[in-house]
Amino acid sequence: MNNIIFNHRSIRKYKEDSIPVNVLNEILHAGTRASTTGNMQVYSMIVTTGKDIKEKLWAAHFKQNMVLQAPVIITFCADFNRFNKWCQQRKASPGYDNFLSFVTASTDALLVAQNVALVAESNGLGICYLGTTIYMAKDIIEILDLPKFVVPVTTLVVGYPEENPGLTDRLPLEAVIHKEKYTDYSPSDIDKFYFEKENLELTKKLLEENKKETLAQIFTENRYTKKDNIAFSKSLLTVLSSQGFMHND
Amino acid sequence: MNNIIFNHRSIRKYKEDSIPVNVLNEILHAGTRASTTGNMQVYSMIVTTGKDIKEKLWAAHFKQNMVLQAPVIITFCADFNRFNKWCQQRKASPGYDNFLSFVTASTDALLVAQNVALVAESNGLGICYLGTTIYMAKDIIEILDLPKFVVPVTTLVVGYPEENPGLTDRLPLEAVIHKEKYTDYSPSDIDKFYFEKENLELTKKLLEENKKETLAQIFTENRYTKKDNIAFSKSLLTVLSSQGFMHND
Repeated sequence: MNNIIFNHRSIRKYKEDSIPVNVLNEILHAGTRASTTGNMQVYSMIVTTGKDIKEKLWAAHFKQNMVLQAPVIITFCADFNRFNKWCQQRKASPGYDNFLSFVTASTDALLVAQNVALVAESNGLGICYLGTTIYMAKDIIEILDLPKFVVPVTTLVVGYPEENPGLTDRLPLEAVIHKEKYTDYSPSDIDKFYFEKENLELTKKLLEENKKETLAQIFTENRYTKKDNIAFSKSLLTVLSSQGFMHND
Repeated sequence: MNNIIFNHRSIRKYKEDSIPVNVLNEILHAGTRASTTGNMQVYSMIVTTGKDIKEKLWAAHFKQNMVLQAPVIITFCADFNRFNKWCQQRKASPGYDNFLSFVTASTDALLVAQNVALVAESNGLGICYLGTTIYMAKDIIEILDLPKFVVPVTTLVVGYPEENPGLTDRLPLEAVIHKEKYTDYSPSDIDKFYFEKENLELTKKLLEENKKETLAQIFTENRYTKKDNIAFSKSLLTVLSSQGFMHND
């Protein structure tokens, strides 16, 4: 297991080969073994392999080619719908139409997703998470017919790798760890922790290509802009309301 | 790896033995290899081992004994503070003070947590997630000195197991999987999928102890009540505001 975790790379180019049914079942089954809140298991996995729905998902996920290439797309959803229906059929009144319940269900779905990712990789498959899932939740809800109390929170594309990239850089361990309590970062801590990242060949290439002075500007001005973040925040909050998770009074 | 995932049990009783430094470093390092959004790594891990802070965390986590027993408590936080400081030091204007950015950072933190949990288990350690983290975020922020743009989203207690429980029941795989699109549950689906859980000896014992007619009532009336969920929803939304994540206009 440890070598799977320490060798993880996101894969963005896939072979056409489909995933054998027994392998797919094993990786989905691995998801079900993750811890969930009170063992409520308030998540669902939507496994999409057909061309028509994949094309719609591809359009929603900013037309990233890997969504069409990879044989299997798994959309992980916060799902209180099944649990609520069970309660209602059992003379119990569910009180899970609020923000806390969305966060609870979202947590379940994400821990499940990481189990699925790791067991996929242990079977020689490649994976990539799609952050676009929460930006485009409204479209994905329509494409996948998600009912009330179901919200997509992440997506994995899964398939046999057609590329073999190196490990991605990470901040040093001491940058993300705090001992006992949080110790806030001084300006020199920030300089030290980002030094390696800022001096990669890849970073220098990006700065030239994007004609920017700093790598941080590529994040704030190109990749993850305030304008986009505000638009996606609004649409995600609207989705939480329309899916029934904002009755907080 | 797969046998670690398929044998996962939450451990709630721990030996006093401390965790060797090299083992602790390996499990924390495993966290850093998880996928994060755009490789921004917007999370932090607070590693608490000292008696004084553990006692305060124990009080916040509903006085669950395992928080005092286990040698290491790791609080996983959505953290845009470090990234924002980097942007500001690099002539870039961060636009990460909104709800989407909280969800992004929270997703990073949860995938990291599951890597940490699995590599802990592969080293013979036991773990348990504390769902109380999001209920009691306000208290935990004070105890751990979390600055703006940092919110705790889950906690792992980690230590050598003093118990060896059996696997916990799960819904059948077909209950949590949907093929191509979401297929909503009919009343007979619900009956079928919850049949095994409702007929466990454990369930029968719980019904007797709690004097309830159905297992669902134990969830809605005892464990996860509407009243608590609404109170925790309000307090979590207040925390998101006070930590700086609700500038959505």
